[in-house]
Amino acid sequence: MAAYTAPLRDMGFVINELLRAPDRLQQMPAFAEIDGELIDSALSGAARFAEDVLAPLNADGDRIGCQLDGGAVTTPPGFAAAYRQYVDGGWPTLSCAPAHGGQGFPGLAHSAIVELLNGANQSWTMTPILSHGVYRIVSEHASPALQARWLPPIVDGRVTTTMLLTEAHCGSDLGLLRSTAVAAPEHDLAETAAYRISGSKIFISGADHEWTDNIVHMVLARLPDAPPGVRGISLFLVPKQLDDGTRNRLAVTNVEHKMGLRGSPTCAVALEAALGWLVGKPHQGLAAMFILMNDARLNVGVQAVAVAQGAYDAALAYARERLQMRVSSGARRPELPADPIIHHPDVRRMLMTQKARIEGGRMLAYWMALCSDLESQHPDPAERADAADLLALLTPVTKAFLSDNAYDDANLALQVLGGHGYLRDHGIEQRVRDVRIAQIYEGTNGVQARDLVGRKILGDGGSRLAKLMTRIRAALAAAETMSALAGLVAPVRRLADAFETLVRELADAQQRDREAPDAAAYDTLQALGHLCFGHLFVQAATIALPKAGAADPFHAAKLETAQFYVRHLLPRAFAHLESAHASAAASAQAGAAPLDEARLFG
Amino acid sequence: MAAYTAPLRDMGFVINELLRAPDRLQQMPAFAEIDGELIDSALSGAARFAEDVLAPLNADGDRIGCQLDGGAVTTPPGFAAAYRQYVDGGWPTLSCAPAHGGQGFPGLAHSAIVELLNGANQSWTMTPILSHGVYRIVSEHASPALQARWLPPIVDGRVTTTMLLTEAHCGSDLGLLRSTAVAAPEHDLAETAAYRISGSKIFISGADHEWTDNIVHMVLARLPDAPPGVRGISLFLVPKQLDDGTRNRLAVTNVEHKMGLRGSPTCAVALEAALGWLVGKPHQGLAAMFILMNDARLNVGVQAVAVAQGAYDAALAYARERLQMRVSSGARRPELPADPIIHHPDVRRMLMTQKARIEGGRMLAYWMALCSDLESQHPDPAERADAADLLALLTPVTKAFLSDNAYDDANLALQVLGGHGYLRDHGIEQRVRDVRIAQIYEGTNGVQARDLVGRKILGDGGSRLAKLMTRIRAALAAAETMSALAGLVAPVRRLADAFETLVRELADAQQRDREAPDAAAYDTLQALGHLCFGHLFVQAATIALPKAGAADPFHAAKLETAQFYVRHLLPRAFAHLESAHASAAASAQAGAAPLDEARLFG
Repeated sequence: MAAYTAPLRDMGFVINELLRAPDRLQQMPAFAEIDGELIDSALSGAARFAEDVLAPLNADGDRIGCQLDGGAVTTPPGFAAAYRQYVDGGWPTLSCAPAHGGQGFPGLAHSAIVELLNGANQSWTMTPILSHGVYRIVSEHASPALQARWLPPIVDGRVTTTMLLTEAHCGSDLGLLRSTAVAAPEHDLAETAAYRISGSKIFISGADHEWTDNIVHMVLARLPDAPPGVRGISLFLVPKQLDDGTRNRLAVTNVEHKMGLRGSPTCAVALEAALGWLVGKPHQGLAAMFILMNDARLNVGVQAVAVAQGAYDAALAYARERLQMRVSSGARRPELPADPIIHHPDVRRMLMTQKARIEGGRMLAYWMALCSDLESQHPDPAERADAADLLALLTPVTKAFLSDNAYDDANLALQVLGGHGYLRDHGIEQRVRDVRIAQIYEGTNGVQARDLVGRKILGDGGSRLAKLMTRIRAALAAAETMSALAGLVAPVRRLADAFETLVRELADAQQRDREAPDAAAYDTLQALGHLCFGHLFVQAATIALPKAGAADPFHAAKLETAQFYVRHLLPRAFAHLESAHASAAASAQAGAAPLDEARLFG
Repeated sequence: MAAYTAPLRDMGFVINELLRAPDRLQQMPAFAEIDGELIDSALSGAARFAEDVLAPLNADGDRIGCQLDGGAVTTPPGFAAAYRQYVDGGWPTLSCAPAHGGQGFPGLAHSAIVELLNGANQSWTMTPILSHGVYRIVSEHASPALQARWLPPIVDGRVTTTMLLTEAHCGSDLGLLRSTAVAAPEHDLAETAAYRISGSKIFISGADHEWTDNIVHMVLARLPDAPPGVRGISLFLVPKQLDDGTRNRLAVTNVEHKMGLRGSPTCAVALEAALGWLVGKPHQGLAAMFILMNDARLNVGVQAVAVAQGAYDAALAYARERLQMRVSSGARRPELPADPIIHHPDVRRMLMTQKARIEGGRMLAYWMALCSDLESQHPDPAERADAADLLALLTPVTKAFLSDNAYDDANLALQVLGGHGYLRDHGIEQRVRDVRIAQIYEGTNGVQARDLVGRKILGDGGSRLAKLMTRIRAALAAAETMSALAGLVAPVRRLADAFETLVRELADAQQRDREAPDAAAYDTLQALGHLCFGHLFVQAATIALPKAGAADPFHAAKLETAQFYVRHLLPRAFAHLESAHASAAASAQAGAAPLDEARLFG
């Protein structure tokens, strides 16, 4: 039941038809050699690997989990062998630069492959997936000596990578970080300063395993002269094995028992004077780490879509087979003892909700992946700046809105199966448990909302948002020339107007009460997520409409899905706007009594 | 971390202040002996049992689960001993009639105790909780001989009970039921006909355990001359142990591996000519079983509130302790290294959302429990009929809206803890997994929605709904005399108006397309749930307002919670109304293409 079928057709629609990505990417010198055919071929290969190798390991990975024995972690059966196939297939090198031994594919292709791997096996994917971000940190911030030593095995996958940020008392608030680093000049590598790092870290994905001989940990810690808070954090590269053949002083002390993602070893790690080398400048480690964090946040959005798609596919297949009751208008399939439940309107509602949000999520996430390529590689600085602004603005939306949706969608998939969905057998309850973490890690969705409203919208006086709104209004105006789309365009435009009104109100409220935008942040993020989806579905509809009469029903289905989204789900944005207005209007102290006093009553 | 503190204060508010239940109950002859003090004392006793005995078993129950060995099920450590304490405490007898050896408490007290037990340990509670419904079936439908034999051990708890409805191919659709019963007249018990029953049942909670020597199974099966469909189903009482000392021919063949509720044995059961006795009339078993089903649906609502409360309490405690970041307006607790996260507006939003929905859910569920008492025991037939209508109308709302909310709320509680919430350690992820089933069993929430709209609203031409709306409008008019509540009353009245408009539209749409109400059913149920909560919070506010200045902050908190609900959550009702209107406007075939074609694309 754990079969996975890669959704290549819809991925192709987003990449080729909606974003016209191959043409736009190939115009950039960095990707001049990569055409659409090459990208398609990479995705097909990754799809086969995901379907044939990773998907069959997913259920047992959850059931068997990871073991810690004598300080060494063992992952579920088949996971290590799958990683060797992944390396042998050259997948780690895909989107690394040719100068570093990579194949030079755009980040968009990488994101699409991230979807395929996660769709088949989220737990397995946790370990290899960080390497692209670590590759970026090392290639952009590490010294030449560190690069020479560590880039080749990161690029070709001989090592996997981790990030050691979180400590038990500090999750969202890295300013509280306590791990320390003291100079160990006898180990300096060329001009790269060496340190002895001590501290305790938690929630470390892939901190140990039997996949590779070595692992590269990116560790945040404080130098002795570090200022307090987030401006006193430095970044270090800490290998598991040192080049003299000895084991570094870093030990896995626990593998956590988690709700899901049990095939991925989530470790507690103790560093006791572990040897590491500074990456980037002293005290500026967080800036470098944020390259990886933003990359990871985008990946979370992609991952969420992937897992929701897997759950949806299973629910759809079940709904076609399962016979229960007759539809109210009679019998849809009188030759059977009951109608397949896919004919029941409420089951259709659940399936369409999933489908619409998965497709909306894919459009947003891939758009952002393309923006990331434009930001880093477009020859025109203005294009780079525009892409950077959109990416900065919408990364928190992509992370949070897509992971919130995915959890709801996986739960709707489970609901389609009823009691059978609650059993381990169909694999959907595992997807629910697995994808739940996406709302939490890489910055909780609440932290994303605060980042969106405080820093990304109000923090620059609304200039990033203005760029987005200009794009949205242009797309709406273009769609409006197609009279068949009037019913789609009008609600999205109403939402765009209402969203801008809210932002003005939040800016005013912030003058009176600096906490007002935080109180409204979650609702604001949700509303902006709906606006982005509305915008993207309008664009998708403009593409689909002229092709909707074709024998191939894909575009007709896309048009109906867009209509479903706007009619049934977009209205939720207005409820969020109303709640956000109420938050903006209230004072920071409002609602204190219930929480402060409630449980005094026993 | 699995501590549970019974929410007696808020339970008391609903029972005594909102519903004024003790006075109203005591006016009925059946409950003349039961005053408020007795009810309080029963709840205090049950609270101690829940806190001291059940709560400490909950985490291990999940971790260790149930074992099937040689056909016998073993439940987690301590579960059987806790049941003996439960029986010794006289709890099974509480709301049984004195004529049957019970204590004659109202069903409302039973529901409140159901909350306490579930709040401490949902898995444990699954097994004893059915007995009240089975008691009602047997006492109302079984023959005198069966009553004489089985009522005493059901009432005093020497046996537990189950219901064997579901078969692998038939869950929501009992018409597909295949189990058969053939006469076994040599075993007739006085005038009660005996049968040999064969079939396979699944999803049977508590089908076997080591708690008691015997178990009474209520089994649905078909007689040889049964008409097809739901009008051909009969009900049988099938004991595990026969009175001749032999084991009945009923075997547990599997204990399911579930997402949650792992401390409760969910069994597959094979009956091979098992001996049973007919309860009620031939072919009319479903009507008798629906007594139990409606009872169980109400229990699910109460259970959902209970589990959400437990998760909320844990999240609230964590939010007071956990230090992360400063609020945007500065430092709320400058003496600490960071502010407790309860001061962060987004954490407050999550906590207030939980609190408001839990308290709203408790009001609705207890109101329904009171209606059940009024329906069965009020001396005035008009009062009984009114209560029956409200209960019939709002049972599906109580089951579905409260379980949907509870799952969201438990997830919000998990979210407050961030990554720590995803670990087993804090017990919240267990509550999430446990309460997920509430949206499914006793009729999925989609089935509830179809029942609500098709049968309960449109099925009687809106007369039940009219009774509810009359009550709501009267309460709004009364609240309006308090000018401080104007801001609460207006949105609820707007929702009441809009809901009635929707129902008229659904009635019209049904003329054109019999499936239109089904398509709109889920959104309609959600909107009605919000309307009920709005109505109840307005009532609560009218009670709380005059007391809001007291030294005891409970009523001030209640008032703020009511305001939070109406400002931040009630707006969601209008989004559901908009979606429901879209469903009513669309034809039954709308949205067919995406689902029928989507996965042809690979």
